[in-house]
Parts: sequence; structure tokens; C-alpha cells
Amino acid sequence: MSTQQASIYTGIYPIAPTPFLENGDLDLDGMRRVLDCMIDQGVDGICILANYSEQFLLTDAERDLLTDLCLDHVAGRVPVIVTTSHFSTRIASERAAKAKKAGAAMLMLMPPYHGTGLRADENGMVEHFAAVAKASNLPIMVQDAPLSGVTLSVSFLVRLAKEVPLVQYFKIETAQAAAKLRGLIAAGGASILGPFDGEESITLMADLDAGATGTMCSALLPDLIRPVVIDYLAGRRSEAASQYARILPLINYENRQCGLRATKAMMAEGGVIKHETVRHPLEPLHPQTRAGLLELAREVNPLVLHWGK
Amino acid sequence: MSTQQASIYTGIYPIAPTPFLENGDLDLDGMRRVLDCMIDQGVDGICILANYSEQFLLTDAERDLLTDLCLDHVAGRVPVIVTTSHFSTRIASERAAKAKKAGAAMLMLMPPYHGTGLRADENGMVEHFAAVAKASNLPIMVQDAPLSGVTLSVSFLVRLAKEVPLVQYFKIETAQAAAKLRGLIAAGGASILGPFDGEESITLMADLDAGATGTMCSALLPDLIRPVVIDYLAGRRSEAASQYARILPLINYENRQCGLRATKAMMAEGGVIKHETVRHPLEPLHPQTRAGLLELAREVNPLVLHWGK
Repeated sequence: MSTQQASIYTGIYPIAPTPFLENGDLDLDGMRRVLDCMIDQGVDGICILANYSEQFLLTDAERDLLTDLCLDHVAGRVPVIVTTSHFSTRIASERAAKAKKAGAAMLMLMPPYHGTGLRADENGMVEHFAAVAKASNLPIMVQDAPLSGVTLSVSFLVRLAKEVPLVQYFKIETAQAAAKLRGLIAAGGASILGPFDGEESITLMADLDAGATGTMCSALLPDLIRPVVIDYLAGRRSEAASQYARILPLINYENRQCGLRATKAMMAEGGVIKHETVRHPLEPLHPQTRAGLLELAREVNPLVLHWGK
Repeated sequence: MSTQQASIYTGIYPIAPTPFLENGDLDLDGMRRVLDCMIDQGVDGICILANYSEQFLLTDAERDLLTDLCLDHVAGRVPVIVTTSHFSTRIASERAAKAKKAGAAMLMLMPPYHGTGLRADENGMVEHFAAVAKASNLPIMVQDAPLSGVTLSVSFLVRLAKEVPLVQYFKIETAQAAAKLRGLIAAGGASILGPFDGEESITLMADLDAGATGTMCSALLPDLIRPVVIDYLAGRRSEAASQYARILPLINYENRQCGLRATKAMMAEGGVIKHETVRHPLEPLHPQTRAGLLELAREVNPLVLHWGK
């Protein structure tokens, strides 16, 4: 039983941002520093090429390069989750096979979507996940995010877990995530190995109350979010709640005012990376928004603010 | 004046499907045959890598390969429009530069979008088109399609045409396209060099009445759609209308029952390509749907049905 439990991921698995130089080229040295900083933040694992990694602004070649570079550089220090989402089942599977070869511990995958109109039906989605599982033989985290425009019902998620046994983790970041997590755990039982939340951990306490065993936040303040999860899972709910209340103003500001730019700005502020560049058509943070973020970050002083100094 | 008019594209610029082998690999020989068939259909130009080319199911490397192969193979016989849409301005611009180098006559571009949530504001869209224009120095056709989830107002399209002079063609395939074309022509005047419609030419007569000077349909029956446009533009409206009425059942069936699979199925039927494979999660035509399509196609007998026999 201990062997089996050792393979269950719980805790905090933040998303690594993808740093760019001022001209928009990949900053490969910055990427390595991001990973080192995250490991120093005490993360239980790292997710790469996710939405907060600006995956929708990268070429295929850049994805391949980053997959290899990140897995090489992390070198087993923590497990790495590689996002391989693509509308094409074939391409998502090719990405999955490459991630496996590079040493990924897990994949993260959205259901297929493109624009507002192109989706798959439920059978098509099961086939999509099954093909990716077959191509990689890796555990898969389903990303249930509003960006996809796909509604994944609890009954469908349970069906997916049962028909594709490698689909074991569920990152729920839709509205009222806690209610969905609670429903999923009740309906799916042992097939729901890892009920997670996401979205910068903006609903973490409610999600932990609902049974979440992990969270995928940004790399802005994982050193301060992790104790919340650890305390909660160890039965210290009130300590968890008071720590969460202390950091919530920063998380709220990230979630509602900044998005993925918050981590980049604070990593630049703290010397982790040289530039907080995002790729167009994303826009830089307004200076006033950045100042508001920095003010709240200084109040709780996450590691990113001084890691590189 | 004749020199200037020679550079204005009017008529019919259908989309080339991307043929696949049964295993889903690109069918490069089939791709060449598709292009040859389309030229024999009498098209005024060909658009590649569009939505009906399954662009959302191709890797970057496949796009590059197809761009070079198609331009090489067409070899100036007709102008080729290359679609270079991507959410990233940088990547759309890189694709545009490659298309220019390969010999494209024009680019087609949607505004930036990803999933349901990621869009650019109007300034960001102008910057996006301006960057692509700068990278290629080619005329650009704006694709105004529901799939993007972006609402492009008439006033914004006119602003775009005026601020980015290479934005000259406007493929309007939103609901009530005719009204939008009419408004665009009235508001934009000489800056609207090519008001086109799209969507399988399902609204062609109304769009011609509104002032459209070209259409971007599929490659299913351009040999039968082109006379409609030619007659209309030459002042023979009633001949155009009666020819259009004759082919409308097939166009309607394509538009509402089959989508991009119609051209592939009929090209396979007529020996243009060997396989009508689409990439998952797209699904093959149901046999009954395919039979219904074939029945209507035989009634009007487009070139695809016998080109390869």
C-alpha cells in the first residue's frame, strides 16, 4: 500500500512561466532560473507549457525545445507535468510521446477545442484522451478550464476516468469549483486519484473543504500557498485558513487584475528573470497595476521578490 | 488605370483541402492533384491552409511544408492566398514572411483569438495586422468568421483598412453577411478593394447584390459557382440567379450537413485524391450523409466527380 501511495501526487504543482527576452525570443537562461527558483519555493512539482506559460503564443519548435530543456534542467529534483493540449488528437499524442521521452512524470490536457465552434462530442473526447494515454503511458491531469469552452460534466469526467485509467488527476477551475470537486469525488470514488484546483488557488480553502488534495497555482507565491495545503491536509484547518486569509489579497489581485503577468513582473522585480515581456497581443501590465501588485507582494514577501538578489 | 485594375483580385478563390493518407499522414501527391484539379476548375486563385484545409489540425512543420509545396506546384498558374492566422502576432508574422518568400500573392488572416477567452482589443488587432503586413508586404484579406469569436464592426474594419493600407480584402462570412458588406462598402469607399464573401458561397446572390466582387468557397464546385460571379459582374443578374438556384441544393447540403468533408468526399469519389480522411476529433461523414451528398452532386456534375477518372 505504501508503494501505491508513493505514486499519488498531492500538494502544490505551480505553473512555470515562459520568460522572453525584450525582443520576444525565448530566454533560455531565464527559463532555467525560473525552475531553480520554483524548486527553492518548495514546490511538490512543476507544470510547464500551460496557459500561464503562454502556450498559445509558442511555436511547436519552441514547445519541443522547452520540454527538453526543462526536463533536463529539473533533472528529477521534482516531478514535471507537461501540458500537451492540441485540438488534433494526433498532435496532442505526438507531444505526449515527446514529453514521456524527455522524462515527464505526468501530462496535463484540455479536451479538444478551437475557437468558438470546434469541439468534440463526448465519445470523441474519450478517444482523444485514450490516444494520448496510449502514446505516453503517463498519468494525465484533465484541465477543466473555461478557456476551452467545453463543458465537462461530472458524469462525463467519471466516465473518462473509468474508460481511460491513466486519467487520474482533475484540475477543476470552472466556476464553483468546490461544488464540482465534491460531486466528482462522490461520484468517481477511487477512480479520482487526484482532485486538484487551479486558477491561482483563488478558491483554495473551499476546494480543500470539498476534498481537493492538490492545487496548481502560479509561481508567484507557492512558498506561501504550500503551507496552507500542508496544514489543511494534516488536519490543521484553522491554521490553514488564517494563512490563506493573509495571502488572499495578493492572490485576488493576481487573479483579477494581472493574470499570468503577475508572476513575470514579480520574478523580474526579484531578479529571477531579466524581463517581464509577454508576447503580443498580450499587453504589458499598466504601471499603476504593477505598482499595486508590488505593494501587496511586499506585504507578504514571497521568495520571488528576493530570490535573485 | 488598367495596370492598377490588373492588381485587383475579383472572382472565385476557393480553399484547397489538405488531403491525408488513411493513417493521417499528409498526402503530398494528393495535395498536388488537388491543386491541379482546382486550376482545371477555372478558379481565379487558390487559398491554402484555411479552416477548410484543416489548419487547426496541422503542425507548424506541416504548414511550412505545405506552403512551399503548394507554391512550387502552382508555379504562378494562378495567384495563391496563404492563411497565416495565429494568436501570436510574432508567429503570424513569421508565417507571413515564409509565405511571401514562397511566392504567395496574398495572405488571409483572422484577428487573434484562442479558445473562448483570449482576444485582443481593437488597438491590439490593428497592431497585429500591421505587424503581419510589415513582415510580408503582401495584400491581406481579413477573414471575418464566427469561429474566431471576435466581433469586427464595420467601423473597425474601415479603421483597419485605413491604418494598414495592405489590408484590402474582406472576407465576410458572419450572419447577414450581405448587410455587413453593404455597410462596409458604403463606409470604407476606395479603401475596400475587395469585398468578398465566404462560407461555401451559401449567401452568394445576396452578397453580390450587396457589392461583393469575389467569393471564397470550397473546392467542391467552383467550376459551377464561377459562372454565377462572372455573369453577375458582367451585368447578367438573372442568368447568375438561375445558375445559382440550380446549384444551391448542393451548396446548402455541403454547408449544413458536411462542412469541409464534402469536398474531400467528392474528390475521393472522382479520383482526385485517394482518401477522404479527416483528422480526429473530426469524424468521417456518416454513410447516409455521404450518399445524400453524392446524389445532389451527381445532379449538377461538378468537375471533381470525374476529374481523376
